Amino acid sequence: MSTPRPSQIPRGFRFAATSCGLKKTGGLDLALIVSDTPASAAAVFTTNLVQAAPVVLSREHVRKSEQRMRAIVVNSGNANCCTGREGMRASQDTAARTAREIGCEADEIIVCSTGVIGVPMQVEKILSALPELAGSRAVRGESFDAVTHAIMTTDTGPKWAAAQCRIAGKMVRLLGCAKGAGMIHPNMATMLAFVVTDAAIAPALLRRALREVAARTFNSITVDGDTSTNDTLAVLANGASGARRIKRVVGRGFSPDNQLGRKKGTSAPEADYRRFVSALEKVCRSLALAIVADGEGAQRVVEIEVRGARSDRDARSIALTIAHSPLVKTALAGADPNWGRILAAAGRAGVRFDPNRTRITLAGIPVFRRGRPLDFDERAAHQAMLAKHICIVMDLGERTPKRKLETTSHAARIYTCDFTAEYVRINASYRT
Amino acid sequence: MSTPRPSQIPRGFRFAATSCGLKKTGGLDLALIVSDTPASAAAVFTTNLVQAAPVVLSREHVRKSEQRMRAIVVNSGNANCCTGREGMRASQDTAARTAREIGCEADEIIVCSTGVIGVPMQVEKILSALPELAGSRAVRGESFDAVTHAIMTTDTGPKWAAAQCRIAGKMVRLLGCAKGAGMIHPNMATMLAFVVTDAAIAPALLRRALREVAARTFNSITVDGDTSTNDTLAVLANGASGARRIKRVVGRGFSPDNQLGRKKGTSAPEADYRRFVSALEKVCRSLALAIVADGEGAQRVVEIEVRGARSDRDARSIALTIAHSPLVKTALAGADPNWGRILAAAGRAGVRFDPNRTRITLAGIPVFRRGRPLDFDERAAHQAMLAKHICIVMDLGERTPKRKLETTSHAARIYTCDFTAEYVRINASYRT
Repeated sequence: MSTPRPSQIPRGFRFAATSCGLKKTGGLDLALIVSDTPASAAAVFTTNLVQAAPVVLSREHVRKSEQRMRAIVVNSGNANCCTGREGMRASQDTAARTAREIGCEADEIIVCSTGVIGVPMQVEKILSALPELAGSRAVRGESFDAVTHAIMTTDTGPKWAAAQCRIAGKMVRLLGCAKGAGMIHPNMATMLAFVVTDAAIAPALLRRALREVAARTFNSITVDGDTSTNDTLAVLANGASGARRIKRVVGRGFSPDNQLGRKKGTSAPEADYRRFVSALEKVCRSLALAIVADGEGAQRVVEIEVRGARSDRDARSIALTIAHSPLVKTALAGADPNWGRILAAAGRAGVRFDPNRTRITLAGIPVFRRGRPLDFDERAAHQAMLAKHICIVMDLGERTPKRKLETTSHAARIYTCDFTAEYVRINASYRT
Repeated sequence: MSTPRPSQIPRGFRFAATSCGLKKTGGLDLALIVSDTPASAAAVFTTNLVQAAPVVLSREHVRKSEQRMRAIVVNSGNANCCTGREGMRASQDTAARTAREIGCEADEIIVCSTGVIGVPMQVEKILSALPELAGSRAVRGESFDAVTHAIMTTDTGPKWAAAQCRIAGKMVRLLGCAKGAGMIHPNMATMLAFVVTDAAIAPALLRRALREVAARTFNSITVDGDTSTNDTLAVLANGASGARRIKRVVGRGFSPDNQLGRKKGTSAPEADYRRFVSALEKVCRSLALAIVADGEGAQRVVEIEVRGARSDRDARSIALTIAHSPLVKTALAGADPNWGRILAAAGRAGVRFDPNRTRITLAGIPVFRRGRPLDFDERAAHQAMLAKHICIVMDLGERTPKRKLETTSHAARIYTCDFTAEYVRINASYRT
């Protein structure tokens, strides 16, 4: 995979990666992303009740220092989870040593770990590698590329994405990388994603943008429904582009509908914010889809859109139930236009709808309508479903009253992958 | 598999099965269970929003005629689901013709179908086979055996169970059969279970007994989390044993705890009811476990017990989340003592608990305690997990106040099977 061009790298960030010895293979396993100046930070962490030490520590650091975050330090090879007090001390020591090397406070560092859980962290390996790592950091695309490799565990390749937008004529750059491929052998792995940008934006607004974008990207993908103990998505914005600061927007929220239906006379700050959100979404969507495509054993990305629901929540519940159904996912592995399994999965999602008003389209081919299957060409549907990226659209045909004489309906989109014998092979092999 | 001995067959029931031509293989595909006299009936149907015609019709019939049900007629080879008005008419015609042949009203018949969905029902095949089928019914074990075969779809073998109990000195017999092996290729299949008994019991009390037992048996098993459009569990009790009628019990419900902690001085009717529930549970548990053991591609039955929860609901949520986790189920396929995946699944169940108080035992071997893994022998654990039936016990260590100075905790038990490459192979093969 290519590395980012110099013009794609946000100003004022440096990258470095090394092999500190945590990965048995001797591969890159320690990465550092540093902002030259204090950056606004926002982050989203796993909702799993079981949380690794670095998650607990980093949440605290972001809360305290969201206006002046300086660096993200990441190791692969050990998730530092279920490691007790020693595990927490390991994360604290990592933050403290990183801070000393780059000249800041410990709570200005985000610490992330990924790999096997329940194994004591050999933190001395990280600590002794940090001085050289911090000294070697560069702005080059190759350095960033090394970071994307150092955060990998069983990913089949590095994942990165870049976007740009103009704020009052000035170019702002966003660059992100991610790792993840389902929750992975030997124990479980993690979704990690980091985005850096030279936009200038207040932490509260950055948080809002990240929440909004995460809902439609990272929180709309699923490989196997299992969430890890270490999932982290973090954004740093250091303002080094020199572009106008993106301001607080007053008024209603910015749903995707609002973005599409933008009216004339949109205020300048509002337009700035929207451009930034749009660029952030581009990066996050690209990374999220790369994770799904790299799902263990996956042959294809499946986009599940549920429309015509009474609420967004209803639509999302049905889309997720379909996305998690082993019968749907195995049918997808066989490129089988099996509308029955999709309908049955929707029927157990706990949402009221009328199957007699429901339509289902598979890879563009209508297969079900008004309570009965359509007379479609199964051979052609099978062929269409062999594609690398296919869409399932389920329209429930429900409407809810909006205003006088007006009705509306709701939708949700979830991205997943098919479920192959290879997934089972990867996850069923006895740990050695 | 053996057939029931004459002494195991409830009095006053007759059985018959035939090949009417719905199964392409020419195998048995139409079954009839008839009570010589009107029987009390209770039934539980699928909770899926998408329900097949026979489910809609039979629910109505049981509601109307719960005091005088006469027969169950079942076909395999076609689920009669998503077949529109013609499908409903097919089920109605089946009930009417069966009623005419045995001399009763149409609403005294339960109709069940299992097989492919969305394919028009060739009901004329059933209708023309019914006269001979109704004429041929016998009380022999071989006739019952034919019924157990006629309801099979992709089951690898027939499933039946029998139990007896004494009511005031008189023997009462229960006999049941079931089909199911996950939701099955080519579309989805069904869990069907029928229990007949010569006990005398009022419909309302039979309903209560069935609800109670179903919660601990059929509603505590899961193969892949997918529920079908046709699931039906029905019980007929015709009183032909001549045993005392089981009476309405006044007072508190009969939880399993109550049964265990039975006090002296239990009233006679209460004891009758408990004996009956216990025998019914024996039959249902045996059938339910046979379904799990026959789960598509399954190598082993896995019993997941969650203890020390704040409520039964909490315990059940966690047990089900573990039972549905693809990562846990694939680890079980590899007999991998992977406590991390079990803990992570529990952590995303939406239930509050403290991982630092949690204990996990796999196949009798303690593997996790107080937030950290124990130093167990992985080799020995792997060996133990190769068994045909293994237990996962997760104790959350929570207590809730009960009375003064007393606390209590809650538990749930779910039965599932492992998730093998063979499951994917069965369900991913393109329908031909």
